Amino acid sequence: MDTHQRLFDEDLGELKKRLIKMAATVEGMIDRAIDELVARDEQAAEKVPQYEMEINRLQIEIDDMVMTLVATHQPVAGDLRFLLAATKINSDLERIGDLVVNITENAPIIVKQPELKKLIDIPRMAEIARQMVRDSLHAFVKGDVLTAQKVIATDDQVDALKEQIIRELLTYMLADPKAIERAMALILIARHLERIADHATNIAEDVIYVIQGRDVRHPTTPR
Amino acid sequence: MDTHQRLFDEDLGELKKRLIKMAATVEGMIDRAIDELVARDEQAAEKVPQYEMEINRLQIEIDDMVMTLVATHQPVAGDLRFLLAATKINSDLERIGDLVVNITENAPIIVKQPELKKLIDIPRMAEIARQMVRDSLHAFVKGDVLTAQKVIATDDQVDALKEQIIRELLTYMLADPKAIERAMALILIARHLERIADHATNIAEDVIYVIQGRDVRHPTTPR
Repeated sequence: MDTHQRLFDEDLGELKKRLIKMAATVEGMIDRAIDELVARDEQAAEKVPQYEMEINRLQIEIDDMVMTLVATHQPVAGDLRFLLAATKINSDLERIGDLVVNITENAPIIVKQPELKKLIDIPRMAEIARQMVRDSLHAFVKGDVLTAQKVIATDDQVDALKEQIIRELLTYMLADPKAIERAMALILIARHLERIADHATNIAEDVIYVIQGRDVRHPTTPR
Repeated sequence: MDTHQRLFDEDLGELKKRLIKMAATVEGMIDRAIDELVARDEQAAEKVPQYEMEINRLQIEIDDMVMTLVATHQPVAGDLRFLLAATKINSDLERIGDLVVNITENAPIIVKQPELKKLIDIPRMAEIARQMVRDSLHAFVKGDVLTAQKVIATDDQVDALKEQIIRELLTYMLADPKAIERAMALILIARHLERIADHATNIAEDVIYVIQGRDVRHPTTPR
């Protein structure tokens, strides 16, 4: 292996490490945000803004690394697809961070008012979404198509849970107008979680594109 | 100018044309979706799925063009930033298309049931969001920082409108449980429009990054 290739591989390794770190930070944010809701404890999520700053810093670092790698190594084919995907995945992770912040913004209404219902489906949805983020990133750094396909398949589960949550909360709203504000907040949180899962799905689709060089985002679209 | 540079510029011109076409298609989708709500006419948005397929086709074409341009011309600095931004903007436009589809999915509840209220703020919000999409793309292809900054500044207006819409609809829900379903649908539509404006803002931020080579996405983040 020539020196140039070795240096490129080293830089790629560093890039992968940063992306995994970013994903782990995002996962921690999801956990804290849901802890706040489940434990009804506003302190639980107090570190979320700090994590978000860390995410923003990583996003800039990663984009700079991609720019430098493309400019200095002039990669083609698979390597180039990997780097273009890295910059998209970087955006997806940053937006997941924003969505977790949105969840913590909707949480106080729920935590400060009497408990509307025991939260079961929302923590379950969050756990699935968190695992999807984790799996999609591991699929990316390992080049693992099967795991990426698993992430894409899991998205339907998340959508079904969200529909169920919304239907149930609508019945609470219809039964008692005093429940509307809390139920609305929970519906918005379910939607934020759904969007987190959507971003993980986007990442998984990019993984398959990188590895197979074909587009799975719109399988029925004529080319 | 050497032949290589001329060919590169021609290809860039073609890429810009596709992105502008994609943005125009997205704008048309927004108009149809809002027409459906305002005219209370389900036919108005019947072409939206067809437009979405067109968007998906363009997204794949544009990503392929960027790949080929990076691989064959090995651009650096500003040209490279432009191409990396093009692939992100491509994703943003595709997701705006998805959001318009979401709007049309929430519309039937409103159109099929009696009119809850005359829609004023939602069409206004849609008009601002549509203009933001248009301006952000023109800023990108023209390299126009001032227009990009204007788009970013407009996002606050959209957020304020959304807050106002949600507050007003909450009072409808509290006053009459029969209004809950329609009010919820309108709140979700307002949120979809807010996210469309967010994507336009992301595009405008990428424009400034391309032109100035500095990151405006997280101005307070220490580097």
